[in-house]
Amino acid sequence: MATIGVVLSGCGVYDGAEIHEAVLTMLAIDEAGHDALLMAPRGPQRHVIDHATGQPADEARDVFAESARIARGKLRDLATVQAAELDALVFPGGFGVAKNLCDFAVAGADARPLPAVAALVGAVQAAGKPIGFACISPALAAAIFREAGVPGVLLTVGDADDEAAVTMRAMGAEVVACPVREVRVDRARKVVSTPAYMTAARITEVRDGVKAMVDEVLALMP
Amino acid sequence: MATIGVVLSGCGVYDGAEIHEAVLTMLAIDEAGHDALLMAPRGPQRHVIDHATGQPADEARDVFAESARIARGKLRDLATVQAAELDALVFPGGFGVAKNLCDFAVAGADARPLPAVAALVGAVQAAGKPIGFACISPALAAAIFREAGVPGVLLTVGDADDEAAVTMRAMGAEVVACPVREVRVDRARKVVSTPAYMTAARITEVRDGVKAMVDEVLALMP
Repeated sequence: MATIGVVLSGCGVYDGAEIHEAVLTMLAIDEAGHDALLMAPRGPQRHVIDHATGQPADEARDVFAESARIARGKLRDLATVQAAELDALVFPGGFGVAKNLCDFAVAGADARPLPAVAALVGAVQAAGKPIGFACISPALAAAIFREAGVPGVLLTVGDADDEAAVTMRAMGAEVVACPVREVRVDRARKVVSTPAYMTAARITEVRDGVKAMVDEVLALMP
Repeated sequence: MATIGVVLSGCGVYDGAEIHEAVLTMLAIDEAGHDALLMAPRGPQRHVIDHATGQPADEARDVFAESARIARGKLRDLATVQAAELDALVFPGGFGVAKNLCDFAVAGADARPLPAVAALVGAVQAAGKPIGFACISPALAAAIFREAGVPGVLLTVGDADDEAAVTMRAMGAEVVACPVREVRVDRARKVVSTPAYMTAARITEVRDGVKAMVDEVLALMP
């Protein structure tokens, strides 16, 4: 039985982890007979968005405490997780990835990852273990690989020419189109990505894309 | 294509809708080829619980705004939903059902349902349409049927002799044990229930129980 790290970034598509993608990631890991190790960084969310109106709310929330809602309280502080504890790592999407795990949502092509997230991804990569990125989370990958001086990592995001894709190309990534139920794989770096709600209209599409991502990540484990 | 109402009660197992159960309910409805109509009441949550610590937090949140996180912003005010719009109704669990849709969490056997929730359930019942209850939400059913003067409704909850079950029997319900991947059905009232996280240890168990609940509800549609 393998341990798959799952990085959460809050609880809700507009300011945190995308809830359906996070739950369906956990489901796919359990379906495959493996354990999910849920984690999130501590610290304030960049924004709190009222999801009923889509407007910013004048309040403060903590990324870890909100992520714990998805995790049903069973969650590790990302800063304490070692690559040696994990057989693979997966990032569900949601704008929390672009707001709380890096600053892509505000800095665009100049985005920088949270140091603890970049450190964990780097250690997992150095150990030859695979990483999956769903939805907008490949933007975080683009920021991490750029900072590491590794150009040309193959990633999906939404449609091949949407704003996120154009920005990620400016960061040095190779961004390709991908049907919503499929994945694209950078075999040299063991990086798997899938569009999920960047293009999905139905939850069953997200289920299939996320399951394909998890299954491909599992297949790439050393 | 049928329209299945899904009633949310916030966002998080300790003070709102149980997130996994809500998402897996939406998944089961989409898998069956039907539409989910997500709804929640407006108004303050009874509590806000820090899900990282399990302790009450000194803040206020709105049931509707938090439920919109699970619904990705596409959510109806429960008070505006008519039974004629629905072919069936389903309640995921989470302690929000026992805190925000009724007061079972604090009043126990004296629990009263939120009037708008009781009115919608009554209208759906009067139209001969089925209703599903997962996890702790059968406690809400017990409160509604007691208030309506209908004793003996067959319901699941957790283990047959746990505190919730004993309390629900005191409210006039017939509470039975049920394996986590199965449902129990009150055919006279078209009421379907399943334990979900009242007894589940794994998300795949919840997936199977919730899917069985949704599928049985669909089979009972007029």
